[in-house]
Amino acid sequence: MAIRTFEEYYARLEKMSRNLYLGSEKIARTDERLQGGIRIIKETYDRAHDPQFQELCTATSHLTGEKINRFCHIHQSVEDLLKKQQMTRVLCHRVGGCIQRCMGIDALNALSVITFEMDQALGTDFDARFRKYLQYFQENDLVASCAQTDTKGDRLKRPHQQEDPDLYVRVVETRPDGIVVRGAKINITNTPYADEIIVVPTRFMTQKDHEYAVAFALPADADGVKILVRPAYHHKRTRLKAPIAEVGDGEAFIIFDDAFVPNERVFLNGQEDPRQTPFAGFLALLFAHYHRHSYTGCKPAVSEVLASAAALVAEYNGIEREGHVRDKISHLIGTAELVYAAGVASAYRAEISPSGTCIPDEILTNAGRRLAGEEIYNEYKVLADLAGGLVATLPLEESFYHKEVGPLAQKYLKRNPKITAENIHRCFRGIENILASDLACVMQIAGLHGGGSPQMETITMMARYDLERLKGIAKYLFGIEDQLPPYERETVTPRKLLERFRGLPEKG
Amino acid sequence: MAIRTFEEYYARLEKMSRNLYLGSEKIARTDERLQGGIRIIKETYDRAHDPQFQELCTATSHLTGEKINRFCHIHQSVEDLLKKQQMTRVLCHRVGGCIQRCMGIDALNALSVITFEMDQALGTDFDARFRKYLQYFQENDLVASCAQTDTKGDRLKRPHQQEDPDLYVRVVETRPDGIVVRGAKINITNTPYADEIIVVPTRFMTQKDHEYAVAFALPADADGVKILVRPAYHHKRTRLKAPIAEVGDGEAFIIFDDAFVPNERVFLNGQEDPRQTPFAGFLALLFAHYHRHSYTGCKPAVSEVLASAAALVAEYNGIEREGHVRDKISHLIGTAELVYAAGVASAYRAEISPSGTCIPDEILTNAGRRLAGEEIYNEYKVLADLAGGLVATLPLEESFYHKEVGPLAQKYLKRNPKITAENIHRCFRGIENILASDLACVMQIAGLHGGGSPQMETITMMARYDLERLKGIAKYLFGIEDQLPPYERETVTPRKLLERFRGLPEKG
Amino acid sequence: MAIRTFEEYYARLEKMSRNLYLGSEKIARTDERLQGGIRIIKETYDRAHDPQFQELCTATSHLTGEKINRFCHIHQSVEDLLKKQQMTRVLCHRVGGCIQRCMGIDALNALSVITFEMDQALGTDFDARFRKYLQYFQENDLVASCAQTDTKGDRLKRPHQQEDPDLYVRVVETRPDGIVVRGAKINITNTPYADEIIVVPTRFMTQKDHEYAVAFALPADADGVKILVRPAYHHKRTRLKAPIAEVGDGEAFIIFDDAFVPNERVFLNGQEDPRQTPFAGFLALLFAHYHRHSYTGCKPAVSEVLASAAALVAEYNGIEREGHVRDKISHLIGTAELVYAAGVASAYRAEISPSGTCIPDEILTNAGRRLAGEEIYNEYKVLADLAGGLVATLPLEESFYHKEVGPLAQKYLKRNPKITAENIHRCFRGIENILASDLACVMQIAGLHGGGSPQMETITMMARYDLERLKGIAKYLFGIEDQLPPYERETVTPRKLLERFRGLPEKG
Amino acid sequence: MAIRTFEEYYARLEKMSRNLYLGSEKIARTDERLQGGIRIIKETYDRAHDPQFQELCTATSHLTGEKINRFCHIHQSVEDLLKKQQMTRVLCHRVGGCIQRCMGIDALNALSVITFEMDQALGTDFDARFRKYLQYFQENDLVASCAQTDTKGDRLKRPHQQEDPDLYVRVVETRPDGIVVRGAKINITNTPYADEIIVVPTRFMTQKDHEYAVAFALPADADGVKILVRPAYHHKRTRLKAPIAEVGDGEAFIIFDDAFVPNERVFLNGQEDPRQTPFAGFLALLFAHYHRHSYTGCKPAVSEVLASAAALVAEYNGIEREGHVRDKISHLIGTAELVYAAGVASAYRAEISPSGTCIPDEILTNAGRRLAGEEIYNEYKVLADLAGGLVATLPLEESFYHKEVGPLAQKYLKRNPKITAENIHRCFRGIENILASDLACVMQIAGLHGGGSPQMETITMMARYDLERLKGIAKYLFGIEDQLPPYERETVTPRKLLERFRGLPEKG
Repeated sequence: MAIRTFEEYYARLEKMSRNLYLGSEKIARTDERLQGGIRIIKETYDRAHDPQFQELCTATSHLTGEKINRFCHIHQSVEDLLKKQQMTRVLCHRVGGCIQRCMGIDALNALSVITFEMDQALGTDFDARFRKYLQYFQENDLVASCAQTDTKGDRLKRPHQQEDPDLYVRVVETRPDGIVVRGAKINITNTPYADEIIVVPTRFMTQKDHEYAVAFALPADADGVKILVRPAYHHKRTRLKAPIAEVGDGEAFIIFDDAFVPNERVFLNGQEDPRQTPFAGFLALLFAHYHRHSYTGCKPAVSEVLASAAALVAEYNGIEREGHVRDKISHLIGTAELVYAAGVASAYRAEISPSGTCIPDEILTNAGRRLAGEEIYNEYKVLADLAGGLVATLPLEESFYHKEVGPLAQKYLKRNPKITAENIHRCFRGIENILASDLACVMQIAGLHGGGSPQMETITMMARYDLERLKGIAKYLFGIEDQLPPYERETVTPRKLLERFRGLPEKG
Repeated sequence: MAIRTFEEYYARLEKMSRNLYLGSEKIARTDERLQGGIRIIKETYDRAHDPQFQELCTATSHLTGEKINRFCHIHQSVEDLLKKQQMTRVLCHRVGGCIQRCMGIDALNALSVITFEMDQALGTDFDARFRKYLQYFQENDLVASCAQTDTKGDRLKRPHQQEDPDLYVRVVETRPDGIVVRGAKINITNTPYADEIIVVPTRFMTQKDHEYAVAFALPADADGVKILVRPAYHHKRTRLKAPIAEVGDGEAFIIFDDAFVPNERVFLNGQEDPRQTPFAGFLALLFAHYHRHSYTGCKPAVSEVLASAAALVAEYNGIEREGHVRDKISHLIGTAELVYAAGVASAYRAEISPSGTCIPDEILTNAGRRLAGEEIYNEYKVLADLAGGLVATLPLEESFYHKEVGPLAQKYLKRNPKITAENIHRCFRGIENILASDLACVMQIAGLHGGGSPQMETITMMARYDLERLKGIAKYLFGIEDQLPPYERETVTPRKLLERFRGLPEKG
Repeated sequence: MAIRTFEEYYARLEKMSRNLYLGSEKIARTDERLQGGIRIIKETYDRAHDPQFQELCTATSHLTGEKINRFCHIHQSVEDLLKKQQMTRVLCHRVGGCIQRCMGIDALNALSVITFEMDQALGTDFDARFRKYLQYFQENDLVASCAQTDTKGDRLKRPHQQEDPDLYVRVVETRPDGIVVRGAKINITNTPYADEIIVVPTRFMTQKDHEYAVAFALPADADGVKILVRPAYHHKRTRLKAPIAEVGDGEAFIIFDDAFVPNERVFLNGQEDPRQTPFAGFLALLFAHYHRHSYTGCKPAVSEVLASAAALVAEYNGIEREGHVRDKISHLIGTAELVYAAGVASAYRAEISPSGTCIPDEILTNAGRRLAGEEIYNEYKVLADLAGGLVATLPLEESFYHKEVGPLAQKYLKRNPKITAENIHRCFRGIENILASDLACVMQIAGLHGGGSPQMETITMMARYDLERLKGIAKYLFGIEDQLPPYERETVTPRKLLERFRGLPEKG
Repeated sequence: MAIRTFEEYYARLEKMSRNLYLGSEKIARTDERLQGGIRIIKETYDRAHDPQFQELCTATSHLTGEKINRFCHIHQSVEDLLKKQQMTRVLCHRVGGCIQRCMGIDALNALSVITFEMDQALGTDFDARFRKYLQYFQENDLVASCAQTDTKGDRLKRPHQQEDPDLYVRVVETRPDGIVVRGAKINITNTPYADEIIVVPTRFMTQKDHEYAVAFALPADADGVKILVRPAYHHKRTRLKAPIAEVGDGEAFIIFDDAFVPNERVFLNGQEDPRQTPFAGFLALLFAHYHRHSYTGCKPAVSEVLASAAALVAEYNGIEREGHVRDKISHLIGTAELVYAAGVASAYRAEISPSGTCIPDEILTNAGRRLAGEEIYNEYKVLADLAGGLVATLPLEESFYHKEVGPLAQKYLKRNPKITAENIHRCFRGIENILASDLACVMQIAGLHGGGSPQMETITMMARYDLERLKGIAKYLFGIEDQLPPYERETVTPRKLLERFRGLPEKG
């Protein structure tokens, strides 16, 4: 069986070369300040071995027929998409937020489609190469970062127009045995404790940008890869141990300082073969699409975690029956349900692409992800509202155990008389972690931007939605046209776009 | 085949007794001012005969195996729920809004569950009685109103506490052959041109309210039934004929002035048998539930009609490429998709009740319906925003054909030079109907309140949602409890409540 | 004393030539269908004679020292601006919405500034001409429409670029004794019962658009003026007389079919003297500015009317103590207070321009007007929410007095037992007028677009706001610059822009 | 002159007794972790000596005629209120947020009214006592905390009903020379570096709660006072020094462990004289009222700081001309202007109370504060939206100066080519402080709850607003009453409530 244990994963981390930079230090992957993120990844290994979760957290490899961790799986069916979505939701409940491993599965699924399509269109042999890499990935049950966001320099210029040509990752040299890449990718979660970095383009590329049309995978500690780390973690608890206090985050600013990628790990290279350039955009799009579908799993969980804390503190504050409290909580729940429903409906409308990989509906996925992004700050507001100011002013844990003032501090914590002071303390301490910490801010911002901000979802939706067909309704009702358009809107997947693109002349 | 034609329906209307009161007149069911509503119902007959729509608009009766109009069908499967939802959306596109016939199917489905459950619990024989009525209904392809909302008097008092005992519909006498009912039901769409009125309770009833626990069906022109009508319709077009200008609405204030209901049409009677009283609430709930699920079909269509008009007028105004325009339209589309997705996901989570009738998930249905209700006024605002003030100031149609000023009026209508003045006129005239008319206001208010206002959906959601389980997430994360609750929330249907209720002692 | 009576105004209307077109008819100014609007104007005359309101509704002419109707007054001080704002609010309460006479005062104030400025800049003699017209206007206590919005044709093209050169009002000929104008102005309230039409440009004009740079006044029944009318009014009450049922609206589509304007009524003419062209934009801006300031008076009143009806129906429905009800009403009140406060603060920051006319702060005025526009649909939603569906389904008034069903209808209206059925009827009938009528839609759309939609206020704010100075705060805080900018933002008035403009070379 | 220097203030801090508890430590008032807060207070001293700011930041004592720091002043006029509001806005710009000294001035103003009123009503001598304390306060230019929020225990019970009688601060003993107090106050900003703690009640008290009706002042280091501290501060900068990085916050959980208060510092004592009990509520209300008016000064500044950073980063990201960017920024500006306008209009409607102290309008103040609170999370969202994810993933400052990766990190920071990498770094580093830090969360939560959450403002507004008068508008319009209520709403101040209360029998 290809499902590894957390201990095996951790042992791998310990063996990796040192290329993490934290402030002025060079640190180990198992540095104390990264343990919070590692603790989250642990959940993805432990649950795959947990009988209660195996149906969700494992899958059968279509390559080998072996049972694998679902985070390494290529979706073969609607059922796979639904299970991935549910797995994401359930695991996020367990860590109080982002499960940090979906980037890998999202990148792999996108590559599985695009390598196949390229081969069909160009007669290349990327799909076999990718399948070989995928098998290695599944057998070793690897954790991958997907590095997409380039630094982008002047946002009004295309990659090749920048003053400094390195502001998007590019191929500086194609050698017989591989390529040399230069540039940086930013805003990448989990890289400090990932095994692999999968690099995909950040946008559509024109022919003049062909050397920026590149996709590949590298071990995270490969030569020439330098990772600037920004960790977020909580004040360490001494008495009131709690899962929420143990989680953390490690963000990366990844620099490819002329790193070499061997051919078997290169999946797109416009520099060598400019005909591949247009596929950069489709890959960018498709990774974003899978990642947004993953958000229809994790974001409902985030809403539920916030709603859960809100409901608990409302009970502890004795206000849980008040109308405005129930109204506010019901809206957190409603957002969770609507975003999840968008992902579910999107999966039920999915199409099997010629590669065999299942692609969910794009309009629904984007509508769901957008709602989540639009609501995230408001959701934090609701929890802050119901918790009250104390979460931002709570004295440090140790003060409650100080021999002089500790007993007094505990005495004055009492609220709902049925709840012990310790549980009230645990509740506010936990909400402090959720709401008033470095990590809280990172989660807010990730909830807004991760997978693409609402602005991006709007753009994607409107780029894909068939507005002419929509206008047909008004034209019929207003007597401008005699007939309504056919009654069902088409399922919209990037696959459709790909098909349309094949028939189109190229633009510059 | 049991599917009738519009002509047969219309002939029935013509034959019915006169009990419609409009202002100071007593009018025929086919009065000019009701033709707009009748025009809408026509669509439900015509499409059932239209090959392109038959898969959606017809079904196979589980009673007879005959092909019937889907509006008469009891949902036997997830597929049935999905088709009903899609049929609703598609037909609403064709009439620019509410299709006005879902109340019947929603009431029938609710009755199919509750009559069965009552028989199981109390050993009564309502289910057979209902099935007989259903078969008659299906064979005659009837249009039914469902009359639920009582006048309710003092909202702080229960039915039996009101100064006037008639402020909720009640059984004033049970005779061997039937019952005599008194009271009024308000806010009922379509009754002026419906064949049947199905009456269900408006709320849970306590034992003291037992004589208010009543459900029955009557022909709309039965003795003792008096219908006060409020029609809404558009200024009649003389030149620019258009579907949107032909639709209308007839609302009813139905008075049961000691009307007699024969036993075979009585489906609940707490006055005779107080053990039936608690089922009043479940029936109220279940009708509302099916009706809200229907809203997940019609409201996306309403959003799409508004979005369609917005996109068309943006094109005609030449502003369709502007960022804020696309953003606004994308939000109309997003609401449509999210509400529809909630209904779809709700159907996929449906449960087959012991009666064989399929009941969708309640949390999802309510979350979807609520979003629709919360957004409705904002959606009108978006269309008004993009259309501009002209829709509220447009001179009457005839002015554009007046021999002196008509040519000038046409000249000054021109906008986007690719669009003819007539089409611009059609577009603004159509949006006038949607946005600046009596009917527009009725649609806004129906969009808010129909099927229950957002306030009601919040109450329903919170009454059913398992908050303790939700709190379990925070308790685990905060170290208050060791285990998370099971990872999937239960599907919530009124059926569950029914089961829970059976085990509970009764409250007064 | 120059303050006329309503009877004098009405007598003038009766004497005017017939140039109103309603559908296929040519109608009198005192046509039944226009009485609702006339009833509103009546309030502006009656209150000026009412001792209780004289302080607000009259002013002292700076031209003659005579007491005049405030609707004819040029603001000489902050006090004048505050009184105009309060007068507007108070009169709007009395008619349940728009008072329909502010356009005149807003146009006159704008002209008083611009004619003076033009004379200063160009050595023309417009100010004396305007003052003479103003004195005539004050002495006859006239009602004026201000016609600003052109039909605009293709919105992506400037006036002179349109296929049809008449899509903006223009001077087709300058004669020794006056000008001939052609074009149409749309979306103009009150013209069917106004004495005068004051025409101002709709936008900035480039030199190539010079023949479109024109402002003038004409009697509303002048030769060549053709007014296409769209009235909105309520179903006539037979029993339950009420002020809300008597108001109405008359919108106009005004065609200038080569109308002649004598020189003493021409206030800007770029065709004759292209140096005047740039002042077209300033006049457009300044009229909009005064009109938006008037909205900080009327829109709070609209919010209060809606809040008032919401509070009353909540009482009648017996739900006035519920938390969500109070919350919703408090937000209507809050919007009223904030919008009004914006106008007040704007007045306190006003500047006296060299012409002597007082100009309020532009950022504040726009921020206030925008909030009002953004909230208007939501405010209608709140009233609909608290009133319930009955306002859209209420049978016609006559049904409640029908000998057969009237007593039953009354019986079933009863709610809060302390309130008579008649008062409940009055309440729902009144809300029907506010919420579910042709006029309701016009008021919604006017609340959004009147004086400029929120989009326009955002554009104005951002065009005028000193963003560089704002960025100075961040530059200081982030260590990019050493000093903060001066601590008070400048008062922003169109006057400032005018000054800036004088020093600038002209753009094409 | 009574205006002290920052150095004098700092010297006082150094001399104070140690009663601060941080985690398990007992720390000095000048501890490194409190320097951020002290840095903010510094601004209030330095600007009072800065000629450019003296008009705003100083005032003339009505007690002594001496020039004093405005933070020690009792508002004698509308002008004073306006200057206090403006001072608050301007100083908040300088520290990027809360100026942390308004609590003192707000508490003193509230006490100046209530002590006078109590003397009038009860013949006591509190006003003279308060004036003596005030003179001492002004002469020493003290910094005060106002401790209002009790721990409150079970929120459904009144103080005397709690299981533990100490869950609201109370007088446990009245001695001839003073009182002994017990209890705790929470959520108190600035106490760790304040000179004085002024204690006021948190709510209305019934007669049974009389021993909880207490107000007094104590030096912050008085015997029996124990302060649990929670500091928030930024990662210390090594290279890119910036004001935003130097600010911080110290929150306090203050325990009164049987602390003795000498009579000259006691301003309300219901335990000794139960007739004073009702004044507890008025004092609670009036402090909250002044504090909310202060928020109409500080919150516009917070919005402006966020808008400023948003505008700057939009420029640096090269997207400042995009429509959605300008729209978002304009809404931050709009909120700032509307909240400030509410405070200005509230000041212009102020009333001079019999004590001579000026009290602003309550409806307007609450409407303004509420809008600020409702928008705060959304404002952070806008900044996060325009800044992009990098603010949450930015590597630590030192990494940019690391000899190996520093130059690469700088290279990849470049965006808008006109902006140096260092300035881009400064900008993102600064926004990191604002948006992604411990302090950011504290500011969000303080922006929501400080001075009372939106929920509290709604309650206050609705408790004070004359709804019957408002309903009068609808009653007139609907024909239920013949006359409209008088046309101006009353100015609403707590003073009015006080008057009304005097005439009322007491409730229990």
